[in-house]
Amino acid sequence: MREVRREPGCELCDLTVPVVWQDEKLSVILVEDAAYPGFCRVIWREHVREMSDLSRDDRLLLNEAVHLVEEAVREVMAPLKVNVASLGNVVPHLHWHVIPRFADDAHFPAPVWAQAARQTDEAALAARRALLPDLAAAIAKRFNE
Amino acid sequence: MREVRREPGCELCDLTVPVVWQDEKLSVILVEDAAYPGFCRVIWREHVREMSDLSRDDRLLLNEAVHLVEEAVREVMAPLKVNVASLGNVVPHLHWHVIPRFADDAHFPAPVWAQAARQTDEAALAARRALLPDLAAAIAKRFNE
Repeated sequence: MREVRREPGCELCDLTVPVVWQDEKLSVILVEDAAYPGFCRVIWREHVREMSDLSRDDRLLLNEAVHLVEEAVREVMAPLKVNVASLGNVVPHLHWHVIPRFADDAHFPAPVWAQAARQTDEAALAARRALLPDLAAAIAKRFNE
Repeated sequence: MREVRREPGCELCDLTVPVVWQDEKLSVILVEDAAYPGFCRVIWREHVREMSDLSRDDRLLLNEAVHLVEEAVREVMAPLKVNVASLGNVVPHLHWHVIPRFADDAHFPAPVWAQAARQTDEAALAARRALLPDLAAAIAKRFNE
């Protein structure tokens, strides 16, 4: 069996947060972001830098995983828009952000990495946070089908 | 033949900029961004909001197109990192950003949508701009293969 490449000190090689779903290739987590309940991350388990460093099969697998998470996010969180991004400038270990966006979120319509435009009403955030168990279940269900 | 959905007033339905490559499904353009030579956009031609609104075949096609652009960007621009994102909060017409990132670019390592960290040396930008004809050719070559 081929050895999986790991990078000492890489926080995504040594994932210490709970996962919603995981297999030998990838992990799905709910990101702890107080302003963005429902923010998910799909993390490739091997220390790979870019999508185009993956084999074709692995790339299609990761694309499909991001798609399944997007579907679950839409179903449960009912966002106004979904944002999907693979950046990795700070942690160059392949991972995707899947972010449900709402008109009242902290940055809308700017990207979540821009300067915040507002503070979202705490009751709205709490209502979204209450959906997270359903989101975790919806993700797991899609990956187990 | 099914009618392609268009949205009046949508700037991505009525693309007025030159395209590097185009077929009946999608367009590839080089984005005019003085700070980011090599910034490409892959635009789905039909007015569709999310990746998960596409049929499976169309989704795979668009994923593949983004991949081909990423490959061309890496080959020609030799960036430190590639950033890939589908946001669409302002223009909710499905499109992907493919952005070559460099240690000396305006925002590195932050996303390009964050506050700028510096101004890149003009000679470095000019050297990157000089690669754009090669980038356009590399993109067209991949899509024509």
